[in-house]
Amino acid sequence: MTKSENIITPKSFLERGVAEVIVKKEFQKLLENTKQAPLRLKMGFDPSAPDLHLGHAVGLRKLRQLQDMGHKVIVIVGDWTAQIGDPSGKSATRPMLTKEQVESNAKTYLSQFFKIVNKDQTEVRLQSDWFGKFTLADVIKLTSKFTVAQFLARDDFAKRFRENQPIAITELLYPLLQAYDSIEINSDIEFGGTDQKFNLLVGRELQGIMGYRQQQCLLVPILPGTDGVKKMSKSLNNHIALSETPTEMFTKIMRIPDFAKEHKDTNREIHNDSIYIDGQKSMIILYLELLTDTPQKDLMEINQAIKSHSVNPIEIKKLLAKKIITEIHDKNQAIIAEKNFQNIVQHRVIPDDIKIYNLSNLPNIKSISLQKFLVEIKLANSSSEAKRLITQNAVKLNEATLDSSFKPSTIKSGNIIRVGRKLIMKFR
Amino acid sequence: MTKSENIITPKSFLERGVAEVIVKKEFQKLLENTKQAPLRLKMGFDPSAPDLHLGHAVGLRKLRQLQDMGHKVIVIVGDWTAQIGDPSGKSATRPMLTKEQVESNAKTYLSQFFKIVNKDQTEVRLQSDWFGKFTLADVIKLTSKFTVAQFLARDDFAKRFRENQPIAITELLYPLLQAYDSIEINSDIEFGGTDQKFNLLVGRELQGIMGYRQQQCLLVPILPGTDGVKKMSKSLNNHIALSETPTEMFTKIMRIPDFAKEHKDTNREIHNDSIYIDGQKSMIILYLELLTDTPQKDLMEINQAIKSHSVNPIEIKKLLAKKIITEIHDKNQAIIAEKNFQNIVQHRVIPDDIKIYNLSNLPNIKSISLQKFLVEIKLANSSSEAKRLITQNAVKLNEATLDSSFKPSTIKSGNIIRVGRKLIMKFR
Repeated sequence: MTKSENIITPKSFLERGVAEVIVKKEFQKLLENTKQAPLRLKMGFDPSAPDLHLGHAVGLRKLRQLQDMGHKVIVIVGDWTAQIGDPSGKSATRPMLTKEQVESNAKTYLSQFFKIVNKDQTEVRLQSDWFGKFTLADVIKLTSKFTVAQFLARDDFAKRFRENQPIAITELLYPLLQAYDSIEINSDIEFGGTDQKFNLLVGRELQGIMGYRQQQCLLVPILPGTDGVKKMSKSLNNHIALSETPTEMFTKIMRIPDFAKEHKDTNREIHNDSIYIDGQKSMIILYLELLTDTPQKDLMEINQAIKSHSVNPIEIKKLLAKKIITEIHDKNQAIIAEKNFQNIVQHRVIPDDIKIYNLSNLPNIKSISLQKFLVEIKLANSSSEAKRLITQNAVKLNEATLDSSFKPSTIKSGNIIRVGRKLIMKFR
Repeated sequence: MTKSENIITPKSFLERGVAEVIVKKEFQKLLENTKQAPLRLKMGFDPSAPDLHLGHAVGLRKLRQLQDMGHKVIVIVGDWTAQIGDPSGKSATRPMLTKEQVESNAKTYLSQFFKIVNKDQTEVRLQSDWFGKFTLADVIKLTSKFTVAQFLARDDFAKRFRENQPIAITELLYPLLQAYDSIEINSDIEFGGTDQKFNLLVGRELQGIMGYRQQQCLLVPILPGTDGVKKMSKSLNNHIALSETPTEMFTKIMRIPDFAKEHKDTNREIHNDSIYIDGQKSMIILYLELLTDTPQKDLMEINQAIKSHSVNPIEIKKLLAKKIITEIHDKNQAIIAEKNFQNIVQHRVIPDDIKIYNLSNLPNIKSISLQKFLVEIKLANSSSEAKRLITQNAVKLNEATLDSSFKPSTIKSGNIIRVGRKLIMKFR
């Protein structure tokens, strides 16, 4: 992402891509004080899930805007909190990642992160720097500052407690450890999705109790996924990853629905009227608002144009896709992606930036079925999906349809596999 | 305490001075297995409260009985749990005791402890041996094994949570740390009052989860204090301390009421019928049951004798006092105590084992009033009590009545102060 062409002011910063700020007046004052040393912007990262998607980009763009005003991002690699896992009711603890896994995942994460955030104004810190030497006395001090009732008031805990679902005592430590990160890095502003509000507030409160200046909490809106229904998430497979090729990205953006079915994660206090058309939430304008710098007045014009049917939404989607790809890659890639999209969808041509799969990654290729093979190379999400695709004659190797008796071990370097119209991959 | 004259068998052990055993059948089997290596009997101790009284003696006597069967006591100096404090709703954490304070308090505690428990069959362990090097990873492992709901089900937590009284997250750690002690010392049986049931069970459960043989939990009855109403406790001043002189002990025992008003802490599953006379609980027989080896059939005879008025309860109290003092001190001291008691009460004579107060402990003696002086030397519990005693002409120095204008700085070494009939002290 290059520096925005629009000049962002402390006032306009808060009018766009922000769901809630705590405390708004303090936040504004902080931004307006130009004598202020660079503000320290806290951004946590779960190293067990290093893949970023457009849902994350919403917050990263806000970080970048503040960097453009001269402030500094502190990325916290949550190698300790990852061990507990943000409470989800599944399992209480996960094995600690090894040092190598953390390093490798941090590398993956940061390479995507820096597609949007300015590397030169970023500092990376590991939780193990402080939690590696945390003692029982430190834990006692930290846990003494908060009550069980305060934590059980948090929405997800309250729900699970009410429904008699187990909450491990460890899970109460999660918000505490995350809060303590704010002490260690002395953060001025912490960023998170609206679902992180409780955790961010614990950080703010802990700073107050321990005599530090309290951080501001900036909650960014949750982006609905490509289904227009639920929060964008890798596990729901409704995401567009930052690591996807421009063509994949273009194709996925073109397939988002025109309007969102309300998704329950949306929890904005600061609204943007331009995204509503006759009471419906326009996915296209929402994505333009949260993922591009399209000026506010242009959003209103697009709103009116869609409403009055004076423009085909497909044209706006193409504009959206090109803007996003230009920001994450560059303008040239965006143009190629658009051309590839047209070729694949309309003429079934192989795009230039096709995904490559190295067959040597699959040493057991001789023993597996086509069904299992499709899952292994990630062209199908499950064995049953693979089976269905084969039955529907949707799987083609060099444009020849494959049936379930096909032996994946006969695939040669240079062969091209296609599943339906959109998933396409070349072997090496 | 010397070895009991009555031979205690695994069966008779459980019939006396026991409120509840978890699990009774397993416990009996454990005791009956004579090929068993010495069992490890866990006994926790709070080093911030090193003063033992007869209420503690109930459990210590059971420990001693098991020692007499060949088993071993492990005293745990709770220098880490003391920091948290057993949840009481007052304050979440207390400052960590210094190493010197812990050592000094442990010395005080053990000197009283070994009046009942056999020193040669006792091992003393400090929590700091393991918690001093406890890491955040250890805390995460430990807290992951239990849920918030499990802990909030504990009576006192449940009550406080229901009544919106704050429970610090730290307080949930208390039972966990105490439970972990059982792992470190590999305990076979843990001892505690009925109010400790929850904590003991957490220890048992943790051992099971971590693949150890689960400890048995022996809950001893709570002894009512000298008021016959509430649990014996130093803070309620209804206690008889093990460190008191034989004469003080004798006097206090003689003043217990004949019958207890039911105190709510009693929570016995294993009852002893001999303590009930016409539905009332005899304090005298209860003390005989829990604090002496008086055979069960003698308890029944005493019960009948009191019921039929064929004996004066005062005689049974004297018997009780002598038995207790014989056990904690020796037979000769018991005889002297009885003689002193009679002299003080009947003839106002100074006993041989009078308490000594060193005037040099009170450097500000020149500036304080008689009222404040009585509180300082602990002959009055409060300033208002001191005032009342002075008004009632109950305070005498060398048998001369003192009024409120008396200057404590005129007291000389060798002077004897008396408050009412029972509190008496010599100055040095």
